[in-house]
Amino acid sequence: MPYPLLPMSTPYPQLRTLQREAATLASVNHLLNWDQETYMPHAAGDFRSDQQSLVAGMVHERKTSPRLGELIAACEADTALDARAKASVREMRRDFDRETKLPRSLVEELSKTQSQSQEVWKEARAKNDFALFAPWLEKVMGLTRRKAECYGVPTFAGGVKGELYDALLDEYEPGMSAREIESIFTPLRARLAGLVAAIAQSRNKPDRKVLELKFSQEQHTRFCRSVLEAMQFDLNAGRLDVATHPFCSGFAPGDTRLTFRWKTDNLLEPLYCVMHEAGHGLYEQGLPKSEHFGEPLGEAISLGIHESQSRMWENFVGRSRAFWTWALPHAKQAYAPSLDSLTTDTMFRVVNIVQPSFIRVEADEATYNLHVMLRFAIERALISQQLAVKDLPEVWNSTFKEFVGIDVPDDRRGCLQDVHWSFGLVGYFPTYTLGNLYAAQMWETINGHLPDLDDQLARGQFGALKHWLNQNVHAHGREFSASELCRKITGKPLSADPLLRHLEGKLKPIYGL
Amino acid sequence: MPYPLLPMSTPYPQLRTLQREAATLASVNHLLNWDQETYMPHAAGDFRSDQQSLVAGMVHERKTSPRLGELIAACEADTALDARAKASVREMRRDFDRETKLPRSLVEELSKTQSQSQEVWKEARAKNDFALFAPWLEKVMGLTRRKAECYGVPTFAGGVKGELYDALLDEYEPGMSAREIESIFTPLRARLAGLVAAIAQSRNKPDRKVLELKFSQEQHTRFCRSVLEAMQFDLNAGRLDVATHPFCSGFAPGDTRLTFRWKTDNLLEPLYCVMHEAGHGLYEQGLPKSEHFGEPLGEAISLGIHESQSRMWENFVGRSRAFWTWALPHAKQAYAPSLDSLTTDTMFRVVNIVQPSFIRVEADEATYNLHVMLRFAIERALISQQLAVKDLPEVWNSTFKEFVGIDVPDDRRGCLQDVHWSFGLVGYFPTYTLGNLYAAQMWETINGHLPDLDDQLARGQFGALKHWLNQNVHAHGREFSASELCRKITGKPLSADPLLRHLEGKLKPIYGL
Repeated sequence: MPYPLLPMSTPYPQLRTLQREAATLASVNHLLNWDQETYMPHAAGDFRSDQQSLVAGMVHERKTSPRLGELIAACEADTALDARAKASVREMRRDFDRETKLPRSLVEELSKTQSQSQEVWKEARAKNDFALFAPWLEKVMGLTRRKAECYGVPTFAGGVKGELYDALLDEYEPGMSAREIESIFTPLRARLAGLVAAIAQSRNKPDRKVLELKFSQEQHTRFCRSVLEAMQFDLNAGRLDVATHPFCSGFAPGDTRLTFRWKTDNLLEPLYCVMHEAGHGLYEQGLPKSEHFGEPLGEAISLGIHESQSRMWENFVGRSRAFWTWALPHAKQAYAPSLDSLTTDTMFRVVNIVQPSFIRVEADEATYNLHVMLRFAIERALISQQLAVKDLPEVWNSTFKEFVGIDVPDDRRGCLQDVHWSFGLVGYFPTYTLGNLYAAQMWETINGHLPDLDDQLARGQFGALKHWLNQNVHAHGREFSASELCRKITGKPLSADPLLRHLEGKLKPIYGL
Repeated sequence: MPYPLLPMSTPYPQLRTLQREAATLASVNHLLNWDQETYMPHAAGDFRSDQQSLVAGMVHERKTSPRLGELIAACEADTALDARAKASVREMRRDFDRETKLPRSLVEELSKTQSQSQEVWKEARAKNDFALFAPWLEKVMGLTRRKAECYGVPTFAGGVKGELYDALLDEYEPGMSAREIESIFTPLRARLAGLVAAIAQSRNKPDRKVLELKFSQEQHTRFCRSVLEAMQFDLNAGRLDVATHPFCSGFAPGDTRLTFRWKTDNLLEPLYCVMHEAGHGLYEQGLPKSEHFGEPLGEAISLGIHESQSRMWENFVGRSRAFWTWALPHAKQAYAPSLDSLTTDTMFRVVNIVQPSFIRVEADEATYNLHVMLRFAIERALISQQLAVKDLPEVWNSTFKEFVGIDVPDDRRGCLQDVHWSFGLVGYFPTYTLGNLYAAQMWETINGHLPDLDDQLARGQFGALKHWLNQNVHAHGREFSASELCRKITGKPLSADPLLRHLEGKLKPIYGL
């Protein structure tokens, strides 16, 4: 490759150039993925994987090149770098070590096993047949443990040794430990389960009639775009399209693409899809990519912090009474005349319905966290081998009953529902609830800084909130870790209290508790 | 690069693998281009060129790699290859030599000059100021001559030495010479100019009222899609989208994308855009890409042959009375009620209006060729330096008067109208008319093979025509040269007569000549 082999006297600019080039190539793969999910003709599918694996191979080659390792080492020895550059090099080292720690044979075995296992999982879920999937899950979990061993068990502040699971968690939530998550989840679960149970007994339930109406794609798109514009998502530097699985891809400077899905008989799904993905999108647009694309300083901190941005817009803004004060007239216009007789109060109540159910992706704002905690407990026990794969269904069902309070009817609606474990995605689930927790804790701080935020939201003025997030979260890139950022912003370590205050404060009055 | 260095005993499979990999990477750039023209957010433009030049550099590296050269040489010495493989190696040699003949310094100077020159051209056209553009055209033409010298003047059948222009033409129409084009264009021009002049004097002109009606994008899309389906363009392996500059990109197996443009006040532009691009698209879909992607056997022969496919559908099918017999009821439905009172005869006459005008891209089917011949004569003289840049406007205007019969009012509508020369695209223009000529000559053969073709078209049955083109043109890839294919299909070398018979046979009755 024609890398200019400049003298080592200027390693940092050279390092930035290599990083940017690898990221430029990776961004091409992100476009291939986006296209595949949105506009690619059906018949192009087979060849698309050839394109993707070719480009992915070239990205991997760059991210693990010996030259990159030399430059990182040279920068670590460069005492002239300023604090932000030092933080950037620290994160590059972290990425490089992770990229180079897995032996090629393991990567290949994982990759092959993952795609086979995912196929078997699909079949097993369709047939409600856990026994079919069990040997594959066993195999994938074995490989995932080997992967974790290659990364190595991390050591945390105060020299505390972690556990094998932490090596996996570290990929999605760097610096976080299973023990810390447990210490936050435990009090959250107790009070949340109580709240959900109390709500189930309430006689003062929201009126669900509006959820039975039918709407067109045009109506959904009109309403969603008006919300997107109010959120100040920059459509000159992004897009909104339809896809089966909604996602946000912030893959290049000036190029952040959102997708959503819609059904005729679901008023709320498109809106909350769009607000969720636009929350991710505002983070991507707020990162300093024009200066730092491809460098840690232009990248998101962690999945938990990313999720805090989407959940904040989806739940803290989008399910507030203030939001609906502004949004209902817009919704009435877009969906005319279906919503004409609705009041703000009815909408506020209906978007906050809490109703325990079996499927995580359909869960309400409160119950959702119980689903996540269940998965965290189980995957942690699978990795530590305190739980054997063969016992998974039984443990799932009894834990689900304990956490959520209802009996799982079958594995299809139980331990077979999620795709994650079928390809060894372990350590990812807890970041969903970490996102809610970070969001809740930041939300209290933000309301301290912007005392009239509620009035602003009720007028559809979301600019001050967006600006606050830009300055306090987005602008830093990966300069700070998630827990550093949490302390910097809120003055405290992450805790369950703000999320509980938020949920109880909103839901108890709605359900007359 | 991790190319497997297998023994030279199996050079051909290795060669195919390398070719396919380079083409896979190139196809990624085609997607970047397609996306840029269709859905890319505006703000992503700057970074998009970084992505494109990175990938283009990697493609070039693969297409010029010494290993590729070694494998081609080994295959040329491999006597066990069959005729098709031999043809494929012959074409790979041709491509490799062209890719490796230009010194890096020239490529870089050209690339830099091209983009600056194109900017100046835009400004000069807007200001109608040829003097502003002249020094840049001078510079670009100088570099283009140097490029041609690097390629070298080709020698044709019978040992006839060509001219410098042929080295440029060879990129778009391999094996064709300026002298041969001249020998075909000269009789074509004389009779065509006469026909256009006679039409201008005719008192029996088509009724243009329908061209003043207004239509919506939905109406255009509905009608165009019904035509696309009748043409059997496979939308499961392709798409139709809107773009400012219509194009067809057949960039991967199972992935051929068309674009068109529309205006409210233009009934015919979207239809003929779509038929033209779908003609290209059927060629791309008909090439044996699943077996030969990335190899000459899976690629189009030349721009002239490609254009023959688009022009055949646009002009020979789309402007025929038979086509409108089938299409008019569909158009009436799509554009209801605007076209309700129209007859097939009125439509047939209006789509064949001949009216000399100044702008090539707006020209009718007959006059268009006169525009092309003018450009061919001028660019050939610029390369041979028989024409100096400073004399271009004067020569353009007098030649235009001679060929088309009207006085050019200004350079904006004269020699400044096309983008091509501003970045050294020389040798491309004649392929437009070569396409019409190949199409006309094939059309006579096809009508011999399918005697009831006209009846089929009148019933909207385009399958036999498509099948004939699949078998006789598309399936060969680059096994034969354009002139070999022409002889193989029609039994004769290319001549002006079939196109003249087609145009005179159709237009004289319309205009009562």
